[in-house]
Amino acid sequence: MSAPVITNKVRAEVLVQALPYIQEFMGKTIVVKYGGNAMINEDLKAAVIQDLVLMSCVGVRVVLVHGGGPEIESMLKRVGLESRFVAGLRYTDDATMEIVQMVLCGKVNKDIVALLQVAGGKALGLCGLDGGMLSGERLRKDGVDLGLVGDVKSVNVAPLLDALEKGYVPVVSTVALGVGPDAGLSLNVNADTAAAKIAVALGAEKLVLMTDVRGILRDVADPDSLIKKASLSELDVLVADGIVSKGMIPKTECCRVALEGGVKKAHIIDGRIPHSILVELFTDEGVGTMIE
Amino acid sequence: MSAPVITNKVRAEVLVQALPYIQEFMGKTIVVKYGGNAMINEDLKAAVIQDLVLMSCVGVRVVLVHGGGPEIESMLKRVGLESRFVAGLRYTDDATMEIVQMVLCGKVNKDIVALLQVAGGKALGLCGLDGGMLSGERLRKDGVDLGLVGDVKSVNVAPLLDALEKGYVPVVSTVALGVGPDAGLSLNVNADTAAAKIAVALGAEKLVLMTDVRGILRDVADPDSLIKKASLSELDVLVADGIVSKGMIPKTECCRVALEGGVKKAHIIDGRIPHSILVELFTDEGVGTMIE
Amino acid sequence: MSAPVITNKVRAEVLVQALPYIQEFMGKTIVVKYGGNAMINEDLKAAVIQDLVLMSCVGVRVVLVHGGGPEIESMLKRVGLESRFVAGLRYTDDATMEIVQMVLCGKVNKDIVALLQVAGGKALGLCGLDGGMLSGERLRKDGVDLGLVGDVKSVNVAPLLDALEKGYVPVVSTVALGVGPDAGLSLNVNADTAAAKIAVALGAEKLVLMTDVRGILRDVADPDSLIKKASLSELDVLVADGIVSKGMIPKTECCRVALEGGVKKAHIIDGRIPHSILVELFTDEGVGTMIE
Amino acid sequence: MSAPVITNKVRAEVLVQALPYIQEFMGKTIVVKYGGNAMINEDLKAAVIQDLVLMSCVGVRVVLVHGGGPEIESMLKRVGLESRFVAGLRYTDDATMEIVQMVLCGKVNKDIVALLQVAGGKALGLCGLDGGMLSGERLRKDGVDLGLVGDVKSVNVAPLLDALEKGYVPVVSTVALGVGPDAGLSLNVNADTAAAKIAVALGAEKLVLMTDVRGILRDVADPDSLIKKASLSELDVLVADGIVSKGMIPKTECCRVALEGGVKKAHIIDGRIPHSILVELFTDEGVGTMIE
Amino acid sequence: MSAPVITNKVRAEVLVQALPYIQEFMGKTIVVKYGGNAMINEDLKAAVIQDLVLMSCVGVRVVLVHGGGPEIESMLKRVGLESRFVAGLRYTDDATMEIVQMVLCGKVNKDIVALLQVAGGKALGLCGLDGGMLSGERLRKDGVDLGLVGDVKSVNVAPLLDALEKGYVPVVSTVALGVGPDAGLSLNVNADTAAAKIAVALGAEKLVLMTDVRGILRDVADPDSLIKKASLSELDVLVADGIVSKGMIPKTECCRVALEGGVKKAHIIDGRIPHSILVELFTDEGVGTMIE
Amino acid sequence: MSAPVITNKVRAEVLVQALPYIQEFMGKTIVVKYGGNAMINEDLKAAVIQDLVLMSCVGVRVVLVHGGGPEIESMLKRVGLESRFVAGLRYTDDATMEIVQMVLCGKVNKDIVALLQVAGGKALGLCGLDGGMLSGERLRKDGVDLGLVGDVKSVNVAPLLDALEKGYVPVVSTVALGVGPDAGLSLNVNADTAAAKIAVALGAEKLVLMTDVRGILRDVADPDSLIKKASLSELDVLVADGIVSKGMIPKTECCRVALEGGVKKAHIIDGRIPHSILVELFTDEGVGTMIE
Repeated sequence: MSAPVITNKVRAEVLVQALPYIQEFMGKTIVVKYGGNAMINEDLKAAVIQDLVLMSCVGVRVVLVHGGGPEIESMLKRVGLESRFVAGLRYTDDATMEIVQMVLCGKVNKDIVALLQVAGGKALGLCGLDGGMLSGERLRKDGVDLGLVGDVKSVNVAPLLDALEKGYVPVVSTVALGVGPDAGLSLNVNADTAAAKIAVALGAEKLVLMTDVRGILRDVADPDSLIKKASLSELDVLVADGIVSKGMIPKTECCRVALEGGVKKAHIIDGRIPHSILVELFTDEGVGTMIE
Repeated sequence: MSAPVITNKVRAEVLVQALPYIQEFMGKTIVVKYGGNAMINEDLKAAVIQDLVLMSCVGVRVVLVHGGGPEIESMLKRVGLESRFVAGLRYTDDATMEIVQMVLCGKVNKDIVALLQVAGGKALGLCGLDGGMLSGERLRKDGVDLGLVGDVKSVNVAPLLDALEKGYVPVVSTVALGVGPDAGLSLNVNADTAAAKIAVALGAEKLVLMTDVRGILRDVADPDSLIKKASLSELDVLVADGIVSKGMIPKTECCRVALEGGVKKAHIIDGRIPHSILVELFTDEGVGTMIE
Repeated sequence: MSAPVITNKVRAEVLVQALPYIQEFMGKTIVVKYGGNAMINEDLKAAVIQDLVLMSCVGVRVVLVHGGGPEIESMLKRVGLESRFVAGLRYTDDATMEIVQMVLCGKVNKDIVALLQVAGGKALGLCGLDGGMLSGERLRKDGVDLGLVGDVKSVNVAPLLDALEKGYVPVVSTVALGVGPDAGLSLNVNADTAAAKIAVALGAEKLVLMTDVRGILRDVADPDSLIKKASLSELDVLVADGIVSKGMIPKTECCRVALEGGVKKAHIIDGRIPHSILVELFTDEGVGTMIE
Repeated sequence: MSAPVITNKVRAEVLVQALPYIQEFMGKTIVVKYGGNAMINEDLKAAVIQDLVLMSCVGVRVVLVHGGGPEIESMLKRVGLESRFVAGLRYTDDATMEIVQMVLCGKVNKDIVALLQVAGGKALGLCGLDGGMLSGERLRKDGVDLGLVGDVKSVNVAPLLDALEKGYVPVVSTVALGVGPDAGLSLNVNADTAAAKIAVALGAEKLVLMTDVRGILRDVADPDSLIKKASLSELDVLVADGIVSKGMIPKTECCRVALEGGVKKAHIIDGRIPHSILVELFTDEGVGTMIE
Repeated sequence: MSAPVITNKVRAEVLVQALPYIQEFMGKTIVVKYGGNAMINEDLKAAVIQDLVLMSCVGVRVVLVHGGGPEIESMLKRVGLESRFVAGLRYTDDATMEIVQMVLCGKVNKDIVALLQVAGGKALGLCGLDGGMLSGERLRKDGVDLGLVGDVKSVNVAPLLDALEKGYVPVVSTVALGVGPDAGLSLNVNADTAAAKIAVALGAEKLVLMTDVRGILRDVADPDSLIKKASLSELDVLVADGIVSKGMIPKTECCRVALEGGVKKAHIIDGRIPHSILVELFTDEGVGTMIE
Repeated sequence: MSAPVITNKVRAEVLVQALPYIQEFMGKTIVVKYGGNAMINEDLKAAVIQDLVLMSCVGVRVVLVHGGGPEIESMLKRVGLESRFVAGLRYTDDATMEIVQMVLCGKVNKDIVALLQVAGGKALGLCGLDGGMLSGERLRKDGVDLGLVGDVKSVNVAPLLDALEKGYVPVVSTVALGVGPDAGLSLNVNADTAAAKIAVALGAEKLVLMTDVRGILRDVADPDSLIKKASLSELDVLVADGIVSKGMIPKTECCRVALEGGVKKAHIIDGRIPHSILVELFTDEGVGTMIE
């Protein structure tokens, strides 16, 4: 980062300009779903970590939910587990689930915790098993058995509130603890959806989904066609008009879950832009699509 | 303030650069003596207010001690009270003291409180009488009676701690409550000295004195000769060498009182530079002389 | 005070007789509007101060709201500001408001605080600006602009509760912080009305207005015709019958505001009688008119 | 009590005169040993109860320790248990101890509790068994076995502090729980001594012993010869000179235990004077002998 | 107790088997009415004490309410007070009430407290007078004056909650403080009913009545005909059918009071079986009749 | 578990016999190092989980530190990483450390957490990275570089205390966060040593090491030669005499670290005996060697 041109005058101005945003979010809870390039590229990763520590320092209650697809893929390959598909959907057998849990909870999660600690933050690496945070059941899509893929049935916010109260940033791997017929099983649950449900359960102010796209574009080919803001009903129209693309639909569905559950705003932001969370929160100019 | 050239990239960088400084001062107590041009010039005043609110938002425990010489002078003139001198020193009679208290506690203090509130801060306007915060006795310099000029004998930090605990910035007028032979009298005490004694009593991390000069200059004529850092023993040499000028000596004496009482660092900063407190605290580059 | 005839037997009896009253008011909030002769005559002032400290000691949560008309008048004269009238009402221009704030918040308020401290109490001198306690707007009576005369729009009880929780008697000057179109202005608000609104906001048990009359008299010429108790509907009749005199009407209107807002009882008491608050609270015999 | 002559003026004066004493004892712990006529005469009893409730209301932390000799005697007679003496000292056998405990803890104690509750106080009736407050061993005077007469070996203040913290006046019967070789036995311990040891364990400000005499008299025949104040060393002289009479010696020994254990002052007061505790605490004029 | 055959394996198994029951009752409030043989037989008494301490240790909030009929009878005989009957009901005159209070509060209650303390528990011996816990009025059955027999009009749970919060087992004698026309009187109230009303006021999970029978038997002559569980409506049928016997009816009525007041379950257990409370709570197999 | 022969009488007896042990450990902190067969055999694992939940339920503050050698070995083999040895010691390269962290923190740790949750406990799965709990440096034994094998330099107990305060059993994987020259690295630290240092830092009552042997045997061939208790100095003799075997020495060294750091007692217990922790804690008979 080359910052020699930033004078103290500019520094002071920026800090002062950030003040109203800091005041707005002090004490508010914000759930960030972390994934994509921002979790792979080292510079972007460093920027995200700094953003989270800064947010935590100025009194924002941040909960970080992360995915880890590429790391899981890579480890599955290393141990020679091939992906099996059932009716076109990936099947998670026991051996795969073991790797999923190990990679998510043991590698991705704790690595993020270490980075936050080194950057001066306070973090606790948790998963849905800890304190019974995420209770799930096996997901059967149209009657198809997908193995240990699960659906979050309920969120116990106690471990998150305990951690936030003590000043930690909870970092959450989305492995859920099976209940009912699946009692005691570790289940692999979708991180976006889990983030949305956690945000609802916490009565969060915002859900922020970090993606590898600019946001919702009116014309996929034109990055300047970004839709900066949309209501849920406008979103319906965008979906009906085919403007919300296939790949984007699960993201917007998560936003819907969050908003219908009482979260004030949901943001689909571009994780490829350094410090995109910070810019989204602490400046006038958003860096993606806000749904409210 | 024209800031169109500040991009979000710069904003993010600045915020992130400020992070280690914010972390350093979170939860620390800093006593700021506010005075001079920064209290008269409207732009500077606005900048100071923003700095204080920002510091308070990011978890710094700020206590603001203010003077008010010019406003007192002006009001004394309006009511036709002439300054009387005894052995070359100004004498504070009862009528003068009445005006001093009114102007400090009723005008200067509460105007600052209003500005902090409007800027989104939380402030309480107190003086040394409130909760018995400052106990004083009449000051007799070499046996000369100076009327109601007082010396702070003890600081009761309870009202300050009560205010800080509840999240307020205490704004303090330095009128002390007479004790002993002067029981019940309002006494006019020097604001710099009071700030130093308050900093000591609070076990503050820093005492910041806002002045109308660049700091201690090796050559008064050359602003580039600023001494950025000095120890107490180096200060002795500077005084002995006549480098610390007459007008600066009371300021350095306050710093000495603070440091000898356990305050970590004392800063003589240039209040004519906008956001000088912010720059001093949250950047690498100081804007005055630090004594430690 | 000559009390040689008071034997210990009498002392014990009196204390014991006061016990049920003390028990009745322990932990209750009582707002006292302090003004008139009781604020000018030194003996009466001393008696009021003792009453407040005693009430505070036995667990009553006392909030003291004060006026300061005569002191303001006198200072306006000293600085040569003449009262200007618009449509028969006094106009408060900027220069006048500056004096009003200075005298109320800097002189009257802090002098009371000093007296309470010297008498062994714990007091904090606040005004409507502190912690944003009183938000106001300019009052336009029948479209007439009265300058910086304001009306209390809302009461933020947080600074009062914070002070009471920490054991202080909050002493309140009724300068309000302008909001809306009058944002940031200091406004001069009527102390009686402010006291009533504060009592309502605090859910106070009692509002006590100290006046320079016996209370509501059936026959102004006959002090024995005191009406000791009246309901709001009886008050209506008294006003209709012309028994509540011109000067008394604003006082009774304040009582109405308080009672309609949930305050249990409002008292118009005679501040010229030493210890009238104490007698009103801690004995069977009232010293004025109680409205309930 | 005929109090028609007490005007409100007198009432106010008395309350205000009591203020400094109230301030002095707010939050202080005072242990009162209650006994003698003040516990038998109904008027005196009512006065003591009122005094205790008043003290509690104005923030004094009162612990009441009581005896009950006459009530025990009377019940022993009713059940036909004769006092047995060993070497001139009364022997407490099991049957007697049963009666002692019943009368002290079940009758005297709970009757006082009921009176305090009816007078508007909050009281808990405890004995040395409750929460293991008083641990004792059998007392062997010069090798003589006195049965279940015990000596307090240690005081566990937890139950007293728990009760005081919750706002109760703990009323204490001095039955101790045997430890060591006497484990589990109920022991009859001297109430004066127990009160002194409780005062020491609580770090009390004062121990007040209610007796049926004026205090220590220089000439037993002359009530005007009351010694109002004595130090421990002066007490030694008084004992050596035979001025402290036989019956008074155990009382002064208790005072010595208390003072040597850190209690500030011990008072031997005349319980036959109505409201003697109140007068002792809240007026200038003591009603007995103060030892310090 | 000879337990040499109990191996560590069995010990571990038993503790582990008890775990789900311990988890079920942690933090729950259980009111136990203690009486009958379990209060007379020394072995049974020791077992009850151990059960209570164990329950308290594993986090159950236990309130013990006790009777004391046989002890009262015996003391009345010793002092020569004969029972008087009015319209077939026992009349409690002042002299009798004095004995009742003494025996219950001074002997039975404090003896239980001592046993609990010696067994390592923490106990406070209270009665309905303490802290105004039980307010009562004289009971007039069909207009017949029964003297100082009372009925519990209201339960002030504050002293119980204060004791439980501090970790004590409150041991309660059922003497109530008269209110209304009976203000200040000590009243003798039925312990079973008082226990039921206390359970309701505390929102207890369970009311456990210790009796000297097996529970409700379908055939009184056949201990194997025990009815293990009954709903309130089934109870109605049992009463109508004459299966609930005369002596059992007051017990079942207490259960009804408790259940209708919100207590989850009421148990009539056989106090003649050692550790019957423990077995009832911490094993699958009940030892009496549960009404729900 | 076949328990039909266990009567309720036995159950009650066992529970009551356990009472003094429960009382002894209520509120005490106990660090358990979990490993060996007890972590592999499903029945033993279930027994350990039940023991931990039970201990937690009866108020013991349990911290569980676990190893995971066999699971790590197995995963290393699956990904084809061969163990490399340097000067006879295993070298941990980056690829190996990645697997170590994943298996410990992601698999072993979270599986234990899930089991505790399913058994009704409350658990949080942490590692030395979380909240900066374990700070380490690379271990260089006699100058030999062992890669990412680390040594615990300091223990930050805050995350453990935060978890215990909120009622969780912290389950700890011994991965440390590198500091100093190794800043930010994940280091593999020995679990026994880490457990000992955690016990010291927490001021624990006990350190319990679960092993696969009976304890220290005088004659390895004779299980009846178990040494049930030894002091540190006796341990010295046992080591000198060659009675403490090679494999046992690291265990006894951990005990020494714990005891010298203030832990009261260290236990080497036989994890192959079901419920060995429970038996050790809650019965008279130990199941291994206690060092004190």
